[in-house]
Amino acid sequence: MGNTVIRDANIVTMDAAGTIVRGDVRITDDRIVGVGDEEEHFVPDQVVEARGRVLLPGFIQTHIHLCQTLFRSRADDMELMDWLRTRIWPLEAAHDDESVYLSALLGIGELIQSGTTTLLDMETVNHTDAAFRAMAQSGIRAISGKVMMDRAGEDIPSALQENTDRSLADSVALLEKWHGYDGGRLQYAFCPRFVVSCTERLLITVRDLAEQHKILIHTHASENKGEIELVEKQTGMRNIVYLDHLGLTSPRLVLAHSIWLDDTERTIIQRTGTKVTHCPGSNLKLASGIAAVPALLSNGVQVGLGADGAPCNNNLDMFQEMRLTAMIHKVQHGPTSMNARTVLRMATIGGAEVLGLEREIGSIEVGKKADLILLDLNKFHAFPSYEADLYSRIVYAAGRGDVDTVWIDGHVVMRGRVMTTIDEAAVLSDADAAISRLLGRMA
Amino acid sequence: MGNTVIRDANIVTMDAAGTIVRGDVRITDDRIVGVGDEEEHFVPDQVVEARGRVLLPGFIQTHIHLCQTLFRSRADDMELMDWLRTRIWPLEAAHDDESVYLSALLGIGELIQSGTTTLLDMETVNHTDAAFRAMAQSGIRAISGKVMMDRAGEDIPSALQENTDRSLADSVALLEKWHGYDGGRLQYAFCPRFVVSCTERLLITVRDLAEQHKILIHTHASENKGEIELVEKQTGMRNIVYLDHLGLTSPRLVLAHSIWLDDTERTIIQRTGTKVTHCPGSNLKLASGIAAVPALLSNGVQVGLGADGAPCNNNLDMFQEMRLTAMIHKVQHGPTSMNARTVLRMATIGGAEVLGLEREIGSIEVGKKADLILLDLNKFHAFPSYEADLYSRIVYAAGRGDVDTVWIDGHVVMRGRVMTTIDEAAVLSDADAAISRLLGRMA
Repeated sequence: MGNTVIRDANIVTMDAAGTIVRGDVRITDDRIVGVGDEEEHFVPDQVVEARGRVLLPGFIQTHIHLCQTLFRSRADDMELMDWLRTRIWPLEAAHDDESVYLSALLGIGELIQSGTTTLLDMETVNHTDAAFRAMAQSGIRAISGKVMMDRAGEDIPSALQENTDRSLADSVALLEKWHGYDGGRLQYAFCPRFVVSCTERLLITVRDLAEQHKILIHTHASENKGEIELVEKQTGMRNIVYLDHLGLTSPRLVLAHSIWLDDTERTIIQRTGTKVTHCPGSNLKLASGIAAVPALLSNGVQVGLGADGAPCNNNLDMFQEMRLTAMIHKVQHGPTSMNARTVLRMATIGGAEVLGLEREIGSIEVGKKADLILLDLNKFHAFPSYEADLYSRIVYAAGRGDVDTVWIDGHVVMRGRVMTTIDEAAVLSDADAAISRLLGRMA
Repeated sequence: MGNTVIRDANIVTMDAAGTIVRGDVRITDDRIVGVGDEEEHFVPDQVVEARGRVLLPGFIQTHIHLCQTLFRSRADDMELMDWLRTRIWPLEAAHDDESVYLSALLGIGELIQSGTTTLLDMETVNHTDAAFRAMAQSGIRAISGKVMMDRAGEDIPSALQENTDRSLADSVALLEKWHGYDGGRLQYAFCPRFVVSCTERLLITVRDLAEQHKILIHTHASENKGEIELVEKQTGMRNIVYLDHLGLTSPRLVLAHSIWLDDTERTIIQRTGTKVTHCPGSNLKLASGIAAVPALLSNGVQVGLGADGAPCNNNLDMFQEMRLTAMIHKVQHGPTSMNARTVLRMATIGGAEVLGLEREIGSIEVGKKADLILLDLNKFHAFPSYEADLYSRIVYAAGRGDVDTVWIDGHVVMRGRVMTTIDEAAVLSDADAAISRLLGRMA
């Protein structure tokens, strides 16, 4: 890849000091080698003129289901259990290799166009290899894994049922194939769906395997009141208490949602360094509730942001999640809570912390990976610019259409809003064919 | 303007039957003359190919402050009274003719680019003629008026203080100059800011003048708990009870916000046919609260949507307000409440009803004004399209960047995302100069 210089940008570094500086960013191969200063001996192979534009670290989404992108606009304004039983599970069961691949590409295309460069993903039971192929091809940075659900409920389609041994064996096979791909751009995470769908033996084995391989465990927890009642019935414990009892709580555990926590559970999360993903769009649309994010943050819990899946959002757009995060907590906690800088932090370096990747990504600093997005805010909707707070312009006014160029791992994956790794027209056409096939299979 | 045919669009008519039809829309001058069918004898001067695209009635925003657009990103994460006293009022007081004109153009540019074709606006105390000039030039359909605030509080800058007679005389002069401009594209409304800032004589005179001229009264009501306490202290009555007591409640009265209503007040609004504007973005960002919109709608109250002003949102984007409206009520009222079609209705024909313009705008029907927006949803973020619910795609997945072409009153005001009536680069540059001048005046 050689040497690139991004010239004369307004650089919002998201470093610990909150540095915003006008100047150049220099990249050699996949790494940032200079920020804000000049270096006479740097000979660039490529020069990107960025005067009047804003350079940010790429967004990091810590809870996504790429396998559901094909189901967008097909499961709206519904109760959660109807949503799962009549739409999401049957559609996941109908998936084939090709449809999982296209669902991932469609999602990754949207994610890159809206500035996300890293995601923590959860796939379905089968065909996860196809999702990894899409991630490999697209250039996205991703941590993903097949979903694990070895405690079959009566509502679950047979194609999604698996026994404990097969669930573990399939997961380990994917881990061995994909973890560390392309210099670590792709990684594996164990993805037990939620306590309700998993046996104790599966959860304990996942705990040991995650420790052994030094990888994440990505699960849902306490999204819904019905879910936590089921867990209490099944285990006799509160959800997080049970996960702690099994020894799963740790900095390797990422909990999506975490809305319905009691004080004991919040203390467990804090004490064990367990990570949380806030998904405001999904939580509102499914009427799940509003997580106590200000309290979690003030207790030092690391909280990232995620759009969840396309059918419960219906975008995978970090700008939407940032706006919601900045807005929905204010009614309860006051207008000064969740300010723009706090929220942009969650979308960047905060997300990196959730993934344990804060030394590699999440800010624009020398030595970090070149995961960068260039924004053009010279638009009616983000103006005036004169002495205006950049955090505010990004969180409250900007949107996906303002992302001009995206670098991941030093590679340009979008330039002037044109994707370089994904054929947009072909994916759209193939996506329609694929969902048509899945719906036919369900009928 | 002659004859235009928009060919082979997916037409979301928003008529009473909820018709969605694929076909042509024919326009003669400023009116729709055909929908969905073909007419051999129609000789078009212009043909717009719209295959694979979605045609909607233009969005109608029923609460906007164009005079505040210049203040975007300069008043974030603040308490309401700090927000008014330290930012909004001093900035409004610093305005001059040129800055009000630019503030309006900047806002109208954003509104048109995001699909809004009609707005109900409230200006500041002075320079409102300049805002009307911007509205006239831009081609937008608008109802606007100078704000009236003849009960000066000690916090209010002297430039915003006016006595009752001047407030009324200035309003009537603007009404006489602008009401009915360009065949009725521009109209005047009386805009008492809120009960707290108005004398009883002003409110009563406004009531009579509005009746005499058959025009709207546009005000804020019950946005904030502190506000309703002040009104009770001032009048001894609840806010809406007081407005009703003075005889202002009627189908001519549009109340922005209406969050803190009791049962009596809701009944008054319903009984008198008073209109309400829901402003979810503003209400969340200023921590005002969440209006009981599902209850108002089920009681037959006509409720429109509005972005309010740029400093409390920070966009003027109907897609953002629709997404929020569809999402924020579900946590309290369940996931089936405020479905996509209900929300799109509020953004179009529902807004027309609030303005008393439901015979002229708000749906794609023969005889109505040609206020239309053409969307291109062939994008990652709004796909798949195969048999997907169009209401859902528009409300939950689409965004401002998907608006391709906009007609107002039969005129093209944006084509292929290029504005035809506003010089975007010049307005951005002049807007920065203007806010710099206002900040200098405040210092």
